[in-house]
Formats: sequence, C-alpha cells, structure tokens
Amino acid sequence: MKENPVGIFDSGIGGLSVVKEIVKILPGEDIVYFGDTARVPYGIKSEEIIKKFAVDDVNFLLKYNPKLIIIACHTVSSYASEFLKKKFKDINFIDVIEPTVEKAIKITENKKIGVIGTPATISSGKYQSLLSKNGISVYTKDCPLFVPVVEEGWFNNKISYEIAKIYLSGLIKKNIDTLILGCTHYPYLKKTIQKITGKNVKIIDASYEVAVKVKEFLEKKDLKKEKGNGKIFLFFSDIGPNLIKTVNLLFDEKIKYRIAKV
Amino acid sequence: MKENPVGIFDSGIGGLSVVKEIVKILPGEDIVYFGDTARVPYGIKSEEIIKKFAVDDVNFLLKYNPKLIIIACHTVSSYASEFLKKKFKDINFIDVIEPTVEKAIKITENKKIGVIGTPATISSGKYQSLLSKNGISVYTKDCPLFVPVVEEGWFNNKISYEIAKIYLSGLIKKNIDTLILGCTHYPYLKKTIQKITGKNVKIIDASYEVAVKVKEFLEKKDLKKEKGNGKIFLFFSDIGPNLIKTVNLLFDEKIKYRIAKV
Repeated sequence: MKENPVGIFDSGIGGLSVVKEIVKILPGEDIVYFGDTARVPYGIKSEEIIKKFAVDDVNFLLKYNPKLIIIACHTVSSYASEFLKKKFKDINFIDVIEPTVEKAIKITENKKIGVIGTPATISSGKYQSLLSKNGISVYTKDCPLFVPVVEEGWFNNKISYEIAKIYLSGLIKKNIDTLILGCTHYPYLKKTIQKITGKNVKIIDASYEVAVKVKEFLEKKDLKKEKGNGKIFLFFSDIGPNLIKTVNLLFDEKIKYRIAKV
Repeated sequence: MKENPVGIFDSGIGGLSVVKEIVKILPGEDIVYFGDTARVPYGIKSEEIIKKFAVDDVNFLLKYNPKLIIIACHTVSSYASEFLKKKFKDINFIDVIEPTVEKAIKITENKKIGVIGTPATISSGKYQSLLSKNGISVYTKDCPLFVPVVEEGWFNNKISYEIAKIYLSGLIKKNIDTLILGCTHYPYLKKTIQKITGKNVKIIDASYEVAVKVKEFLEKKDLKKEKGNGKIFLFFSDIGPNLIKTVNLLFDEKIKYRIAKV
C-alpha cells in the first residue's frame, strides 16, 4: 500500500498548486492527477451536477489504486466532500477545506476571518458553518473574476488591483485579521491581495495546508513512501490550446511530469 | 414543416441574444433553445471536444423536429460548422459567422476589419480566412476576460473600460473601420468598446445579423410561420445558482418563456 500513488483531482488546473506543495514536502510519493478540463469550471454550476462530475473524477482515479484521494477543488470540497466519503466508504479522502479551517482557527487572534472563493464555494456555506461552529465571526465574498484574471496571467497589474479592491473592500471594513484564499487559483494573486488588506491581515493558502495534512496522515497510517523520486502523472479530460503553457507556468522546471488526455 | 420550431443551441446563455433578435423580427416562430450550461464554456477547449459537444447539442434539438438549427455559438461555428453540415446532411444549419462576415464586407470602406472573440474562435482562423478571401485585411484579438466581465454585470464601469483598452489598443493602431463582435456576450460591452474605438469604427453585432439571415432563409424556402405568437422553450443541461437571474437580465419582460433542465 505504501507504494501506491496519491490521487488528486480538480475541475481543471488549479489543483496543480496542491501537487506542487506535495512534491516539496513528500518527494518520494507517486502522484496521479486528474483535471476535468473538458467540463471546467465547476464553480458556477449546480450542486447536483458538481456531485455527478465528482463521482466521475473519483472513478477515474480508482483505476490507479490510490492510497488516498485529495479533493483539490474547493467547489467539490464544499458540496460533495461528505457525499463522496459516504459513497466510497473504503477510500481515504482529504479535502481542501478542513485543513484550511483548522489553520485559520489556530492563527486568528480577534476571531474575525474573511473567506473568498468562487460563487459556488461561497454559496455552499461550508466554510461559514465550520468556522462559526468554533466561535468565529465569518465574512465572505465571492470573486468570480479572479480565476479568469489568473488564467490571463494578470497576477499583479492595474486591473487585478482594481478588481481586488472592489471585491475586498467590504471584508476590510469588518476588521478581519485572517483571510482564507478559498480557491486554488487565488494564491497567484496573493501580492495584490496583500497590498489591499495590508500586512496585518494573515493570508492562508489552502494548497500548502493540504500538503501538510497529507504528510501527517501518511505518517500516522504508516503509508509514507520514503525512498526514490516520485513520478507525476497528469491526466486531463481535454487539452485546450493553452494547457501545456499554463502547466509549465504553474510548475517550475524542477518538477518532471508526464501528461495525457483521457 | 412551417409549424415546426426553430432550433438554437449555444454553449451556455450567450445565444439568448440570438433568441431575442429572432423574437423581434419573427414573432410567430416557436423556438427550442438548448444551452449546454453543464459544460460551458467551450471557448477555452480543444477542437475535438468542441465537435463532440456540438453533436450532442444537435442530437438533443433533433427530438423537436426543427425546420432549421442555428449554431448560436461562435466557437462551434468556428470549429464545427462544416463538420455538422456534413454529419447531419438533411438539416438546415445557419451559423453566426457567415452572416456577420457578409455584413462586414458590405459596410467596410477601407477594407480593414477587426475581429474580437474567445481564444478558440480567434485561433480557429475561420473569420480570418472568410474575410481575407474577399480582399480584406483582418486584425484579430482574443479577449478571454470579456465573458466573465459580462456575466459579472460590469457592462460599463472602470474595470471593463481598462480591460477593453488593453485588448483593443493593437486593433485601433491598425486603422480598422469595422469591428466584429465575434462572441454573443460582447454586445453587452458595446458602449464601452465604442468609447475606445471612437465613433468612426462601425461595430457589428452578430446576433442581429443572424436573425436577419434566418428571416431571409425562411421566406425564401416558404417556411415562415406567420400567425400567432411563438412559444419559447429554453432547455439547459444545468441550472446553476445565477441562471434564472441572468436569463431575466438578458430578456426583457415582454418575452415569455418556459425553462427546463435536461
């Protein structure tokens, strides 16, 4: 079982930020990634269709006998995490929301936390309910333009700044001391976002928190593969005109991978 | 056959602008619309997957015996129009590109035309080849952020203006006298775009041109339904959190429709 790969899926390429963090702290692990680029994005779609797509994604990964499946998509984590755990009882799942919430609770001092994400993630209320259970005041904002802005490569220009200013102004007025980036695309806008929030607001990047959680889980269950360099297999349901370019933009040169369309 | 409906499909809701124009000039026609909102957008995906989705969309409409099918999606019109005409030999198809190109050729004086659209529409080269065959110099620009900006409802604010300025600056330098809005979402940004191009550039809205073409076609083939008020059936493969709101934003109150998920 130690030799089996870690499975990861996302609606598209955003989850590659999770792959990147796992490679850093668990270099021995083989990784099988599935990005549903034929049907991306999930974040504007209904709960019913998100669950249906998530089951397809898991079924694809199961062919590779993963020792663990990471739900590297905030939208699926919001709507279908419990549903998947019930439907696939024998599978170990880790989603992107739980580790992020744990970290946020640990570091907030004034117990006022902001959460930004896609319309589907925010309207699911998942972050809100997990945080407020712990006595936190939660302020949210959906930011539908952040994903296309990141995919345009406008990480830190006038436009990303103006858009972020509109989206974040309400949260800043609430005097939050912690901000959760509730979408795997958003870390690329971290500099721009930090300019607007100021340095006193701590920004939490879910991709890193998930990688830490995966390491803890594998060590606890004695499933960690120590030796060798892990192989990375990236599968996509569609390879559009800009995909390879974007994968290379997200990964640095050190990460070697194979890519295939399924 | 006169009594049969007009079929229209699009990757999502953009094609409703075509429905709106048809209702204005052909009020007697029944319309069956299919929007593939579960798999929207098409404009960032590959030719292979766009063709596959287009066949699914046509097969859905065929159940309603349409007298004509309108391909109300520039991406499908770019990549799959000829393919669909070959595959479904008995069906009358009208796409959004041909009528738009005809109009542009008619009104340009200096024979310099700009075309803006999604990355897939622009990289297909379809507009470029149809226009340059007619001795026109063609200048193109893909504008991936325009669709999400329209869906955010930012038709005419500081951000849409700044984005349009970046996207259009190269075209303006080419001294074009005509600009084709090669995406059904873009007419909502027409005011902003006209501010940047200046009044001397004529802007062509594909949705209107298609409706005119449909009228000509039905009259020529004696297929026009003259009497009564047409019924409008809107089918979607997914109904997300904002769909109904957006449909009502695109249609005015006079248009009565029924909506269903399939």
